[in-house]
Order: sequence, then C-alpha cells, then structure tokens
Amino acid sequence: MSLPYRHIALIGLGLIASSIAHAARRAGFEGRITGTARSAETRAEAARLNLCEVCDTPEDAARGADLVILCVPVGAMGAVAQRIAPVLAPGTTLSDVGSVKARVIEEVGPHVPEGVHFVPSHPIAGTEQSGPASGFAELFDNRWCLFTPLEGGDPQAVADLRAFWEGLGARTEAMDAAHHDLALAVTSHAPHLIAYTMVGVADDMRRVTEQEVINYSAAGFRDFTRIAASDPTMWRDVFLNNREATLEILGRFTEELFALQRAIRTGDGDHLHAYFTRTRAIRRGIIDAGQDIGAPDFGRAVARKTGDRT
Amino acid sequence: MSLPYRHIALIGLGLIASSIAHAARRAGFEGRITGTARSAETRAEAARLNLCEVCDTPEDAARGADLVILCVPVGAMGAVAQRIAPVLAPGTTLSDVGSVKARVIEEVGPHVPEGVHFVPSHPIAGTEQSGPASGFAELFDNRWCLFTPLEGGDPQAVADLRAFWEGLGARTEAMDAAHHDLALAVTSHAPHLIAYTMVGVADDMRRVTEQEVINYSAAGFRDFTRIAASDPTMWRDVFLNNREATLEILGRFTEELFALQRAIRTGDGDHLHAYFTRTRAIRRGIIDAGQDIGAPDFGRAVARKTGDRT
Repeated sequence: MSLPYRHIALIGLGLIASSIAHAARRAGFEGRITGTARSAETRAEAARLNLCEVCDTPEDAARGADLVILCVPVGAMGAVAQRIAPVLAPGTTLSDVGSVKARVIEEVGPHVPEGVHFVPSHPIAGTEQSGPASGFAELFDNRWCLFTPLEGGDPQAVADLRAFWEGLGARTEAMDAAHHDLALAVTSHAPHLIAYTMVGVADDMRRVTEQEVINYSAAGFRDFTRIAASDPTMWRDVFLNNREATLEILGRFTEELFALQRAIRTGDGDHLHAYFTRTRAIRRGIIDAGQDIGAPDFGRAVARKTGDRT
Repeated sequence: MSLPYRHIALIGLGLIASSIAHAARRAGFEGRITGTARSAETRAEAARLNLCEVCDTPEDAARGADLVILCVPVGAMGAVAQRIAPVLAPGTTLSDVGSVKARVIEEVGPHVPEGVHFVPSHPIAGTEQSGPASGFAELFDNRWCLFTPLEGGDPQAVADLRAFWEGLGARTEAMDAAHHDLALAVTSHAPHLIAYTMVGVADDMRRVTEQEVINYSAAGFRDFTRIAASDPTMWRDVFLNNREATLEILGRFTEELFALQRAIRTGDGDHLHAYFTRTRAIRRGIIDAGQDIGAPDFGRAVARKTGDRT
C-alpha cells in the first residue's frame, strides 16, 4: 500500500514522530522524511538513529513537504505553526498529533496560509517513554487516530490523511473538537492527573519510606507510577489547554470519591460492593473491543513494544 | 527444597489459594492439600481442576492439617476462624492472606485455641482475576509476603511459615500490623478506590457514550479499568477493614488533587511541570527494585501469567 504523500516533515522528534517515521517505512514509504527538534541533543540523537533527514530549523524541515505534522507539546503548536507558515506551499497538508484539539485549532488556525489544508488529528497511542529512540513501527497498530476536521476544509485532504494513518496501522474516526476534548478528558486526561496525584502523595508520606513504597508497590500503585512517568511537558500542556473539560471531569470524580469515602466511613458495604461490581463490566467491554488483553499481566509481562498514550 | 509442613489446608479457593496449591507442588510438596470454599460451584470447579482434596466444610478441610491458611475475604476471616477452631490440634500453624492485618488479628485472634500458632501474613501478589481457575504457580515469584507476627508468638512457627512462603517464590519481611496497614493503604488500597471511582465516573458520563469510552480508552483509563475489575467482595472488605488508614490517605490525596486542580485553573504550568517531574523518579525506583519492568507495554504485551494484587 502506498501512502498518499511524497515528503513528510516531522516537527518535533519524540515518541510519536519517531513512531510515525518507523511506521511509514514499514508501510513502504520511500519518499523523503525530514524532521527537526528544538534541542540540539535530540536532533543529534535522531541523526545517529538515522530516523530521518534531520534539519536545524522547523522551516528547513517543512520546506517542500506535502505533509507537515506538528509533533510538539500542545502549548508549542501555535508558535511552531507561525514559524513554518511562510514556507508552506499551497496544497500542503498541515496536521498535528496534539492530545487536545479545540485549543490547537485556535492556536494554529490563524497561521495557516491560504491554500494549505489544516487537518487536526490525534493518534491515541503512546507509552510513558519519550525521545527519538522511543518510537517503534507498531505503536499505532489497531489504535484509534481521531480527526477533528475544520468546517469548510478540503474533504480530499482529510481523506488522504485518514488513508495515511490507516497505512500506519491505525483506525480513524472523525468528530468535533469539543466532543474529542471531553471524551479524552474522561478516558485519558483526568486519569493521568489522578495517577500523578496519587504517586505524589506516596512520595510525600513521611511515615512510609520511599524504599517501602517501592518494595511493596502492588498492582494499583505500580500501574499508577507507570502512568505518572509520562512526559511532564506534554502533560502540563494537555492540562493547561484542556482546562474546562478536565476540571469538569475532576469535579465529577471528586463527588464520586466523596460518596465512596462516606460509604467507607459509615460502613456501607452494599454501596461499595454494588459500585465495584458495576466497574467490572466496563473492563470487559474494553477487552471485547480489542483495546486491551484479558490476561492478568499487570505490566509485568514480556514486552511487545506497544502501548498507548494520552 | 522441602516445605516445612505435611498437610496444608486452604480455606477459600480463589486466586491466592489456588496459586498456593500450584506453587507448593512446584516446590516439590508431596503432602496433602485439602481445601474448601463457601459455594458448591467453586468447590466443584476446584475438584474438576484437581486443585486439591476438596472438602464440603472448613472443618473437614482443616482437620489434621499442620498449616491452615485462611484465604477468604477479610470480612469473613473471624467467622471462619471461629468455625474451624475446634478441629485445630495444638502445634498447628494458622495463617491468613488478608490485605489488612490489624483487623484480621482482632477478629481471628480471640478464636485461636491454646497451642495453635497464629501467624498473620499477606502475600502482595494477585491479578484482577478470581476463582480457582485463576491461580498459577508463578504468582508469588519475587513478590513480597509480609508478616505481622503477634507479640509473644512462637518464633519457630514464624520462621517455618517464612520458609514456606520463600519456597513458593516470595521474599518475606516482618513488620507491625499498623505499619503494614498504612503502607498498603498508600500503595494499594487508595489507588484501587481511586481507579474504581474514575471508572465509575466514565460509566456515568451521559455525553460520552459507553462505546466511546471503550473505543478510545487510552493508557491511563485502560490501566484503571484493569484495576477496577478486581474482586468486589474482597475490595469491599479491604476498605471496610482498613478504614482509618485508607481515609487518611484519601484525605491527603484530595488535598493534593485540589492543589493541582487549582494550578490548572490558574494556569500555573510551573507547578504542574515540577510535580510531574518529581513523580517520574518513583517509577524509576520501582523498576530498579525489580517490582516491574521498564518496557512500555501498558498491559498490552503477550501475557506471562504473573501480576499483583492488593
């Protein structure tokens, strides 16, 4: 299968960008892949890995590309778009992989030149690793890549980009940006903040030494630490840029948590049991939907390099 | 290596009990293993699996054993201990695998006959699966089994039981019950309640259909659903019986969560970034301590049947 582009530019060379490069080559892409990163160290590492043609600036990387993908933290998208705008030729598709869509559209949109097709997207895939060495070709296999196309945008540009992501192994779906941001606040952003919080609490516990937390880390906590090991800059930007949806979900979470805390305090075992029984069903649905496996590995299994982010 | 008992009785035939049976046989144990469960269905399943000599009552299972292990939910320990007390011969070791220790000691202690050695223990291992078919011999390998020996108890009985658990593959350590309960509240009980809560919130979200939550379940949420699929009865009993420590940790958690929510609301990116950077270090410690692997599998790897509970 051939991908519908001849020159892909990756702005930012972290986990997602490096995985795009690997997955594109796996799909038989033989065109150019240029890329750049803000830090010289990251650029040098990407060059050592032969990940792509590494350029010193976003402008150099984007020049001449017919697909430019912004793979930087959400908070940096606007500035990068502004910077590369002058080199984008008409007919180019500009996309991004941000975990938040409404804000990215707001920030990037004004900089998109006439004739350039801006197609916001979000591959729901990742791991807690970061940097150009963390990418792998299988990252997007069977994962969703969500599209939030702009009103009045070019349908062919959207169709081509969906074909591109499907070529990388992903399933694609389109929805509006506000809906995306709320769905992700529930399934990703709030859970990440909660995991960060719980790991921070454990770290603070003076009476439980760090060594003990580590030694006795059981299923719940170990999974939380994996989530809480994700890239700090990316996640800071997610929360700052999906503020309303995240705060709404956290408000609901706090309400529910208080209700369960009260059940514990008052000894209402029936309430707890009914609640815990209900949550089992969702898990079953996720396994049935092919988004996880049913085996009880708890992250301790022999690793196949696949996972999810955001 | 030979285990220091000749007849093991397992009261309750769930994940932990069935794993004990498998792990004891793997260790070369050739004595009797008797067992029982409250439900006839579970007993029939255990018999079909040839897990052990299945008895109809706890008394029948415990009679003549020199090691009796209570593998029932924490809330059922006291009643079971009372029931089997009359058949326990002097010199027998009575133990349990409860995730809460102070309350189990309070409930079981009064029923322990003169000359019987009660040695509370807690293997920090498990998966979200339950029932007699869910056990496997490797469950305890390299996991901790914590002991909370009673003051004035027989040191030899404790030493023998530690040798037993080490024979099953576990590492052992002793501490006092209150300390155990606080450490586990941090590393296991609070994280489980939080995961249950977050999955419940997602389930409630009317604007985000169930199908979407399932389809787009990303890393954070998927790990939460795995945790929240754990046995409802076991966890109800954990929370009801480790009430004070769990509520204390949840109180601290809520404080921290509110501080992070405020940072999101006020746009304090530095606070968020510093917090998220700090939590990465704990993760590294857990990998270094051998309690998880560093590979980015997120539970999607080819499963080896190992994991952790509680």
